[in-house]
Amino acid sequence: MVFSLPSLWYIAPASAFLSLVLALIFFSKLTQCSEGTEKMAEIAGYVKEGAIAYLKRQYKAVGIVFAIIFTILFILSRMGLQGGLVPFLFLSGGLWSAVSGYLGMKTATNASARTAAACQSSLNEGLQVAFRGGAIMGLMVVGFGLLDISIWFFGLNFIYDNNLFNIAMPILRDLDISTWSSAVATNDLFHRFKLVDISNILLTYAMGASVMALFARVGGGIFTKAADVGADLVGKVEQNIPEDDPRNPATIADNVGDNVGDVAGMGADLFESYCGSILATTALGASLALSYQELSLYYVIGPMVVAGFGILFSILGIFLIRTKEGATQQQLLHSLLIGTSVSSLLIIACVGYLAYIGILTPGLFVCVTIGLLVGILIGQVTERYTSDTFKPTQLIAETAKEGPATAILSGISTGMKSTAFPVIAIVVGIMIAFKYAGGMLDVSFGIYGISFAAVGMLSTLGIQLATDAFGPIADNAGGNAEMSGLPKQVRERTDALDSLGNTTAATGKGFAIGSAALTALALMAAYLDSVKVWLVKLSSDGLLMVNGTYFNAQNFSVDVSGITAVHDPKTLSTAQLVDVFNVTVINPNFLCGIFIGAMVAFLFCSMTISAVGAAAAEMVNEVRRQFREFKGILDGSEKPDYAECVRISTDGALRSMIVPSFLAILTPIAVGLFLSIPGVLGLLTGALTCGFCLAITLNNAGGSWDNAKKYIEAGNLGGKGSDAHKAAVIGDTVGDPFKDTAGPSLNILIKLMTIVSIVFVGVVIQFG
Amino acid sequence: MVFSLPSLWYIAPASAFLSLVLALIFFSKLTQCSEGTEKMAEIAGYVKEGAIAYLKRQYKAVGIVFAIIFTILFILSRMGLQGGLVPFLFLSGGLWSAVSGYLGMKTATNASARTAAACQSSLNEGLQVAFRGGAIMGLMVVGFGLLDISIWFFGLNFIYDNNLFNIAMPILRDLDISTWSSAVATNDLFHRFKLVDISNILLTYAMGASVMALFARVGGGIFTKAADVGADLVGKVEQNIPEDDPRNPATIADNVGDNVGDVAGMGADLFESYCGSILATTALGASLALSYQELSLYYVIGPMVVAGFGILFSILGIFLIRTKEGATQQQLLHSLLIGTSVSSLLIIACVGYLAYIGILTPGLFVCVTIGLLVGILIGQVTERYTSDTFKPTQLIAETAKEGPATAILSGISTGMKSTAFPVIAIVVGIMIAFKYAGGMLDVSFGIYGISFAAVGMLSTLGIQLATDAFGPIADNAGGNAEMSGLPKQVRERTDALDSLGNTTAATGKGFAIGSAALTALALMAAYLDSVKVWLVKLSSDGLLMVNGTYFNAQNFSVDVSGITAVHDPKTLSTAQLVDVFNVTVINPNFLCGIFIGAMVAFLFCSMTISAVGAAAAEMVNEVRRQFREFKGILDGSEKPDYAECVRISTDGALRSMIVPSFLAILTPIAVGLFLSIPGVLGLLTGALTCGFCLAITLNNAGGSWDNAKKYIEAGNLGGKGSDAHKAAVIGDTVGDPFKDTAGPSLNILIKLMTIVSIVFVGVVIQFG
Repeated sequence: MVFSLPSLWYIAPASAFLSLVLALIFFSKLTQCSEGTEKMAEIAGYVKEGAIAYLKRQYKAVGIVFAIIFTILFILSRMGLQGGLVPFLFLSGGLWSAVSGYLGMKTATNASARTAAACQSSLNEGLQVAFRGGAIMGLMVVGFGLLDISIWFFGLNFIYDNNLFNIAMPILRDLDISTWSSAVATNDLFHRFKLVDISNILLTYAMGASVMALFARVGGGIFTKAADVGADLVGKVEQNIPEDDPRNPATIADNVGDNVGDVAGMGADLFESYCGSILATTALGASLALSYQELSLYYVIGPMVVAGFGILFSILGIFLIRTKEGATQQQLLHSLLIGTSVSSLLIIACVGYLAYIGILTPGLFVCVTIGLLVGILIGQVTERYTSDTFKPTQLIAETAKEGPATAILSGISTGMKSTAFPVIAIVVGIMIAFKYAGGMLDVSFGIYGISFAAVGMLSTLGIQLATDAFGPIADNAGGNAEMSGLPKQVRERTDALDSLGNTTAATGKGFAIGSAALTALALMAAYLDSVKVWLVKLSSDGLLMVNGTYFNAQNFSVDVSGITAVHDPKTLSTAQLVDVFNVTVINPNFLCGIFIGAMVAFLFCSMTISAVGAAAAEMVNEVRRQFREFKGILDGSEKPDYAECVRISTDGALRSMIVPSFLAILTPIAVGLFLSIPGVLGLLTGALTCGFCLAITLNNAGGSWDNAKKYIEAGNLGGKGSDAHKAAVIGDTVGDPFKDTAGPSLNILIKLMTIVSIVFVGVVIQFG
Repeated sequence: MVFSLPSLWYIAPASAFLSLVLALIFFSKLTQCSEGTEKMAEIAGYVKEGAIAYLKRQYKAVGIVFAIIFTILFILSRMGLQGGLVPFLFLSGGLWSAVSGYLGMKTATNASARTAAACQSSLNEGLQVAFRGGAIMGLMVVGFGLLDISIWFFGLNFIYDNNLFNIAMPILRDLDISTWSSAVATNDLFHRFKLVDISNILLTYAMGASVMALFARVGGGIFTKAADVGADLVGKVEQNIPEDDPRNPATIADNVGDNVGDVAGMGADLFESYCGSILATTALGASLALSYQELSLYYVIGPMVVAGFGILFSILGIFLIRTKEGATQQQLLHSLLIGTSVSSLLIIACVGYLAYIGILTPGLFVCVTIGLLVGILIGQVTERYTSDTFKPTQLIAETAKEGPATAILSGISTGMKSTAFPVIAIVVGIMIAFKYAGGMLDVSFGIYGISFAAVGMLSTLGIQLATDAFGPIADNAGGNAEMSGLPKQVRERTDALDSLGNTTAATGKGFAIGSAALTALALMAAYLDSVKVWLVKLSSDGLLMVNGTYFNAQNFSVDVSGITAVHDPKTLSTAQLVDVFNVTVINPNFLCGIFIGAMVAFLFCSMTISAVGAAAAEMVNEVRRQFREFKGILDGSEKPDYAECVRISTDGALRSMIVPSFLAILTPIAVGLFLSIPGVLGLLTGALTCGFCLAITLNNAGGSWDNAKKYIEAGNLGGKGSDAHKAAVIGDTVGDPFKDTAGPSLNILIKLMTIVSIVFVGVVIQFG
């Protein structure tokens, strides 16, 4: 009997496809809107050109890295240390992440001038255009992500079921294909075994997405902040010209940066979290379904089903976001909140119903709910610490009166303090998800529940990302309005949208780090399952330990007796290997791994921060040079050389993204080879926990300095030009790389290191 | 047969006693030196008065905390949840730490004017006086520490051997004293069992020292930086008067701060590391000696013996530090290095000999050596990242040319980068110590080896602390010279000494954090042993698990059958309890604990940094008020109100040290009650690893800003008054609470949380 996927599974590819269709419709509607005056189109053109030029060069550089990793994976798969399709899955993950990023950014750059133009009519029309631009991004990320996963999942099942093993080269049983095929027709166990293999192979897709995300986040983060710092330090501080002034040579680079950093970077980040959480949960579910053969196979496909429904409800939510003409900003925010809340409530209700009719367990209903709650909570805390309507940011503005040093100190102190509630939220979420998913019975159920909570948190990503990507579009629209010399009223409207975007961006950032933490946890658990799979493959006896007892692979009508001779694996049995890799707390490799993991988080931040510093210094010199050499720029008689500034940011980003990226990719392998599996587990634990706190500190310190500055600029504490303002500007400049480069890049670091560990576990066991 | 301590053990109390005698001699020699002019004595008097007034108030506040904890421990001991002598050991640890701190500070304040006076004759005489002052501090810390431990160890053995159980109320066997006494005469095993009990009780001594250290570090750190920031921001920046100018109202407070922060704080910190590492190793050794009954009891007393020899060689090293008349600074440094190196080499040789004649194992020789090496290496890295003779600090000075924001960014980036080598050093040290101590055979041997490495690192603390405490004395001597209006040449000499002190201080700080990490690791392992002890006590069957098999306590001729009835303990057997507390990596309590541990490190820093900010703001206002209201201060016709500034720093320190201290004390207990033993283990792991990296980042960022400023002040990059200098001053101000409050306090946090976990493990098991 060929395993047939239950019909409910098709909700995943179907809604993903629908999502992409809708994105296309939105995009064609968007392009029908007017781009406004010729000047506006021209400026938007510069930004679009710069952004696309940057992305092309980035993809070229990343392409080389992908080619190298592909080659390594290919060789490994030939050596039997990786499944045969693994290199292609890796490419695929990177490719579709890049496509989403590219199209999302193209949309965003197209939307900005149109938003500014729509703002000429009314605030509401501006909102509609900007939000639609964001929605396209959201729909594409979830659409491409879930569709690819579904296609691969379906395809791999088809390949295995139809005995096309010379194509697939599965990890577990590549040596005795004949026996597999005889098992195909008879054994439910075979399907469970097969799903373990497939889901393990699929995790490489997440690695592709993760590597792409790292380059997008780090490169984009360096690009945007080098331009921002450069534009501010010379333009605003030295020459006293306003933000986004067309006379500032770095202003186009600054606007390009918003797109490559906040749109493409954030999109790739969440694309990776989205795919990673679904794939990790699938792998954990497959392992469970093999251990407990009475379990429904919905343990394996459940995450995809929930994600599918999540897309449907996200689409519904997006259509709900409509405002009456002349709505106040409060009403706008309210309208956005209705969209996201309805989506969230519907997915909770839906999972509740699936649990009620017995497709999912009631425990998983709790997990999805808690996942969504934790995401919302972390977002709320982020806002409370970074918005200038609350005490912490106002206090930073207060201390700015005493000078820059005290402003810096209070910002860092606020950032550090803001780690408390998110950690408590994550901890309580983990404990509840673990308990209700059945962790007391068997730890694996609990871990599966935690992983499912991540899927729940990200199930409504479609609409979450829409409200998030809308921010930079509004920001760019403001830039466009300023540079095109539109009336003050238009700039006020775009500013209102920008400010609305800042609120949703704060929530979005909390969401990104929260989901990264849960996804990394899920991936860590999947890593342990991967270790098991590879222990079976590389041990001398090919025994599988399930639930504490050992199964001979022959139990599954599969003969593995030939492995020893062909693969020259370890001479240890599975039992001995398990013992070697046994991890308790006082295992020194594990402890050392944690030390290294914490250190890598700090070192990685150091690299990204200093990269911004270096690129910004170059930018400052260039902008100063242009003002000095072309006297006509300041009075508007000469046009500054925008392209040169874009080039500096591009070069800085491309040059500096290599080393931190290799740090993230090579550390888990090196630690694996020196400190073995326990060391890797420590590394991942240390990087996750320390990186989480560090990321929140950097994000929130940066966010609160930014808003403290805006609070003073709004006329408080002496307003613009006061000493307090100068101190706040210094705080803001320090915060720029904190919140837009180092902090968000940490999200990826903690996920990528885990996924690299999974993909290279065979190498570590063989050579470690 | 009453257990008699081997004669070699007496080296510990003997050399500790010798050390104290020598300190007394040095002190009387010091007081014979001239205090210089009347003005100098007067100023030294102000500082001494302020420092002692502060310490008195601090001890009063801390006294209340000690009274509360004493009462709690007393009640617990009555409930059978703690040994009977435990509350007194706690008091004792705090008391002697306080005495060392008080006397050390009294010495330092006495030495400063005398150093300035001696500098009138020659640089060399100044060095002798300052170094002698530091030596007194070093000798007292190790002398009091080791002497107390020896006395308690001897006394407890005496009490147990002589059946005085109604005094001692041991943890393990308080219910059947009669059986104990019958065992006394017959059983070597009884001694081993007894030593487990004694060494567990003794760990409470370290808790007393640790609580005192926390208050000294946090309070002292807040005091000194509030004064420093206040003095600098108004005096140097606003009024343009030099450092240590007597017209600055905060200058006395600043000098007092150096004493209470750098001398008393650092002393209490290292007192705690010293005692903690010895006691933890003793406890681990006792546990090993029970598990492997063929092991020599030197496993238990070995750490004390090594510490005893360490003191002897430190004394020898101190006497070696002599310089020829007219020595250059390089020669002075060389002379200090000879002292420390000879001590280190001698202790290595000595342990080698002890291993050769079979008293210690060869593996422990490796451990001591590696411990010393790691300490030296971390110190070297610290210097490389913070001294202005190396690239990193010079680069920070370079970036200061672009403004304060880039200076801050490059400093933070440098601090983060500087975590790499210390972590690698610790990791390599752990792995080597683990391996050579026999960790492959039994993990417990490996952990014991790591712990012994900490003892090795701290064995020459006497001379290390001498070279360290010498810095603040020289710093204060400079202040005294400035305020007394001594000739420029004298100030130059004190500056030379100060700069020498800065080098040794950098090494000392690396030493402090390195030893804290290893000590915390040792204590964590001791915690696991404590858990075992309490499992025996509180389980229904009173079985002891040794080496994986269970022993009935009757094996040791001790009857524990009565425990159940009296103590109402759990109804679980030891086996069940061990299972409940079994900790693997995917245990969610453990993971959540790590998250909380990392967060607590950040939260703790946030609290201490903002405390400095608050107190400094008050100080700034007060200094401004004095300059405003008393016009005569600036022209020297009026004397500023020094006492008021001292009062503000004192109040700020006392007010703000309470909350972070309670965070450190209560978190392990709360986590234990909610997340049980695995949660606590996670907490300690997370706080240790993340706290270690955070502490190094803060220490080194602060240190490098400080020296970048000095580098510019030395005439580089535009010198004093340039824009680069202004930016560097802002960096330095940000760095002040980083390097002197938050960073060093983290040392204590990671140790204190571990020791609190040990002392309250009974409570956690009973009520958790």
